[in-house]
Amino acid sequence: MPLPSHMLSELAEQLGVRLVLNGGAGDIAITGINTLEEAGPAELSFLSNPKYAGQLKDTRAGAVIARPEHAADAARVLVADEPYPVFARALTLFARPQGSFEGVSSLASIDPSASLGEGCTVYPFSYIGPRAVLGKGCTVFPGCYIGEDCRLGDGCTLYPHAVLMAGTVLGNACVLQPGAVLGAEGFGFARTKDGINKVPQIGHVEAGDGVEIGANAAVDRAALSTTSIGSGTKIDNLVQIGHNVRMGRDCLIVSQVGIAGSTHVGDGVTMAGQVGVSGHLHIGSNSTIGPQSGVAKDIEEGKIVSGSPTMEYSSFLRLATLTPKIPELFKRVARLEKELGHKPIASTRTDSSLLSVWNRWMAKMHRK
Amino acid sequence: MPLPSHMLSELAEQLGVRLVLNGGAGDIAITGINTLEEAGPAELSFLSNPKYAGQLKDTRAGAVIARPEHAADAARVLVADEPYPVFARALTLFARPQGSFEGVSSLASIDPSASLGEGCTVYPFSYIGPRAVLGKGCTVFPGCYIGEDCRLGDGCTLYPHAVLMAGTVLGNACVLQPGAVLGAEGFGFARTKDGINKVPQIGHVEAGDGVEIGANAAVDRAALSTTSIGSGTKIDNLVQIGHNVRMGRDCLIVSQVGIAGSTHVGDGVTMAGQVGVSGHLHIGSNSTIGPQSGVAKDIEEGKIVSGSPTMEYSSFLRLATLTPKIPELFKRVARLEKELGHKPIASTRTDSSLLSVWNRWMAKMHRK
Amino acid sequence: MPLPSHMLSELAEQLGVRLVLNGGAGDIAITGINTLEEAGPAELSFLSNPKYAGQLKDTRAGAVIARPEHAADAARVLVADEPYPVFARALTLFARPQGSFEGVSSLASIDPSASLGEGCTVYPFSYIGPRAVLGKGCTVFPGCYIGEDCRLGDGCTLYPHAVLMAGTVLGNACVLQPGAVLGAEGFGFARTKDGINKVPQIGHVEAGDGVEIGANAAVDRAALSTTSIGSGTKIDNLVQIGHNVRMGRDCLIVSQVGIAGSTHVGDGVTMAGQVGVSGHLHIGSNSTIGPQSGVAKDIEEGKIVSGSPTMEYSSFLRLATLTPKIPELFKRVARLEKELGHKPIASTRTDSSLLSVWNRWMAKMHRK
Repeated sequence: MPLPSHMLSELAEQLGVRLVLNGGAGDIAITGINTLEEAGPAELSFLSNPKYAGQLKDTRAGAVIARPEHAADAARVLVADEPYPVFARALTLFARPQGSFEGVSSLASIDPSASLGEGCTVYPFSYIGPRAVLGKGCTVFPGCYIGEDCRLGDGCTLYPHAVLMAGTVLGNACVLQPGAVLGAEGFGFARTKDGINKVPQIGHVEAGDGVEIGANAAVDRAALSTTSIGSGTKIDNLVQIGHNVRMGRDCLIVSQVGIAGSTHVGDGVTMAGQVGVSGHLHIGSNSTIGPQSGVAKDIEEGKIVSGSPTMEYSSFLRLATLTPKIPELFKRVARLEKELGHKPIASTRTDSSLLSVWNRWMAKMHRK
Repeated sequence: MPLPSHMLSELAEQLGVRLVLNGGAGDIAITGINTLEEAGPAELSFLSNPKYAGQLKDTRAGAVIARPEHAADAARVLVADEPYPVFARALTLFARPQGSFEGVSSLASIDPSASLGEGCTVYPFSYIGPRAVLGKGCTVFPGCYIGEDCRLGDGCTLYPHAVLMAGTVLGNACVLQPGAVLGAEGFGFARTKDGINKVPQIGHVEAGDGVEIGANAAVDRAALSTTSIGSGTKIDNLVQIGHNVRMGRDCLIVSQVGIAGSTHVGDGVTMAGQVGVSGHLHIGSNSTIGPQSGVAKDIEEGKIVSGSPTMEYSSFLRLATLTPKIPELFKRVARLEKELGHKPIASTRTDSSLLSVWNRWMAKMHRK
Repeated sequence: MPLPSHMLSELAEQLGVRLVLNGGAGDIAITGINTLEEAGPAELSFLSNPKYAGQLKDTRAGAVIARPEHAADAARVLVADEPYPVFARALTLFARPQGSFEGVSSLASIDPSASLGEGCTVYPFSYIGPRAVLGKGCTVFPGCYIGEDCRLGDGCTLYPHAVLMAGTVLGNACVLQPGAVLGAEGFGFARTKDGINKVPQIGHVEAGDGVEIGANAAVDRAALSTTSIGSGTKIDNLVQIGHNVRMGRDCLIVSQVGIAGSTHVGDGVTMAGQVGVSGHLHIGSNSTIGPQSGVAKDIEEGKIVSGSPTMEYSSFLRLATLTPKIPELFKRVARLEKELGHKPIASTRTDSSLLSVWNRWMAKMHRK
């Protein structure tokens, strides 16, 4: 496929930055963007973190986006006070959309009662059910399922195998990565003295504008009413969102997080990877939750917490510092007891049976 | 799509409860069920938790299921001693099945040697391999894969993109949520001094009656013989079940749990979200394992455990209470040492380098 | 389907081991392999772990692979100094490949500019995009997506619903389990004072020879350049590999691990289940990381670590031994303080509100 190509001087103009040519260097065609280490002579690179300034003299990059103080440090420099956002804008000029099919494939299965807006693309092997409504310019990659009565805004992209169960509502410009599932049945089971009761899940899922859902992530439909994801919220791969969760705007939910049913998440919340959140909680707006945390209580607005169960981040950091010293603390206490004439407590040997199987597995795996 | 609609008086009869009409209210058509907060005038709601009794006077719900003491607190009340089970039964009357296609699509690919019971539905783009046998009334949504020699009981539902690799056996009335994968190759690799050896996985997966498997969950096929899931067991989204796991009846396995190979799980076991279980263990019947626990040893029947590695739940709770006080304990011991004339131990400053990257990430993410 | 069948004497020859027939037993046809407990009279079993030697006298197996000292302990014994590798080789003789379709289905959608090597199989409902190149003897199961400009080596297997986004490169003999997604958009979002900025992800994914990726696992494409997985590396189900991760050869990454962006992983690394690794780290070659660990700092070559955050495995084991004794340590310190005349610190009651919802959930789930 022909690479996109832009003259460097035109790039400077489009990005609104100054081009400095040093040592007789001329304008060149730029065909891509890469790191300082890996860029070739037809590629643009960037220096954002001063820590890497030393790489400037070794880079093979055809041109570099850098701060004014580095304007003379490479043959061709696009000078920017803040290189990173310029770099991010440059990326959009070189980003090629996935896929090149256009129109509606005759190998797709589209119910006659479904309605597709102008300029929609539907790849082969996708299924669009009765009364589903797609806005303008939506793209549906192969193998997607759009159940009956779904409503999609304009410009949504469903990558391969995305699933929208019946009644799912998406705003404009939503993106579903491959295998994302919206609207599967919530885990509505409860133990009773007569066994496990199943509670039908008659609600649905609604996402606002610009929501993105990661590969193989799952957002369950509500038991009643709606599981909702606010506009601008981005959800990473393999995340689980339980039934009746209500999540606000502009949240960042990193990979493998799990949020149990009926929890309300405010706006601007960030959850790092592998966090678990219990059900029926309130997570305050603009709070940040550290990786692998276990949230068992409400989190106040604006708090930074970590740990399982969670505590204030500063306490977590203090505790993480001291935890490796706990064995020493046991010894210190034993010494004090001895000095005060206490009968010695039998010393505690490291007990590898505690972790029996885990321990054996570690040993076996590490033996090469 | 026309909403399901039931006259309130008929609902009362079907549910076997008494209808009380207050203040001149008449019978009405009910079109759905919703929470007290969100229900509209044609919807039924319910009051189960006395904590929410205050919402009764503000609800717009057309009718409410409530205990006898609230029989006069709304215009139309379905009176039940136990509102919740009545509500759950009412839900089944309003639950619309997903999908409305019937019959076997000409766009499905079905091997001539496969056999489909009476009343089966197969959507477009599903593949059913040689010698597969489906019982009566099974529904196979778009994009499913049913490998050769699979055997399904009656009334099974495979939602979009469910995968059954060769030889998988399902009982009656099993439900696979979208993207669930049964029978992928177990992770049969072992390090040896000659590198990584692959052990072929020649077994299969068997599930009993009424088993449900969540969206994008994976149950691996056995190395030898069978990975088995007992009747009535419900497995949530994104769960991983390793090869040769044997799980009993009526277990509830919440989202993102991982169970390593050859572990045996008894009947009636509950695992909360994100639990990890090592391989080759025995998890006793009717035990309960808390969220994010790490199970490295056998669990006795009926135990409640939590933590990583697991301990008795009461000990876990005691430990969780004391953990935030550990930094203070270090200070208390230092004070005792000082009083007894010990040379002071250099104080331990909070060491943010411990968590270097994680720490920087937290700071960056929280800066808005 | 007819079972594979091999005469026991021929098996002995193929496996290069000695066949001992005891008590007048004759040669028989072997139709499968199973455990000592479950094998039937036409099945072969094996005794590797001396712990199970007692099972030899009760097994119904037609023949057993065992060490010389057990050559007389069953009717038919294949004698091997190391039974396990012989068993593993025997398995390959009985392993039936998944699927039996051959050729390129007319129900697949293959772009005319794509190129398929000799002997490729493409099942129905798979999509192969423009300029994709498949080597010889690749098998593409139903519902796979191979985006434009992908390049696959010889003998790759894509099980149902595997997804390769544009430009993905696979070496020879790679295996993608069902639902594996390579090349989804990296989670390139950053909070700024103007909201969440999306950084286009213009890189791709490259995997070496013999790489295996588990069911519903996700390997994101790079922001720039390449996310790479070295030859021989095996990745289990539901694993998340972030953008620009570079992983070496012969790593074993167990189920539900998550590795954040730009982390470099050496050769021969083992990560147990549910490990989380922060971004921009270096994980040294031949290191081993225990289950559920949280890696927030670089790991040196050859280390064994565990815990969240990680510490040396021996320290982790010591700490895990002492952790349940921390409540007792609090009591011991209080006693010392009392003896030295300190004002008593108010005792800390177990605080179940710490875990409010979690606690209630545990209680409810455990009540049957």
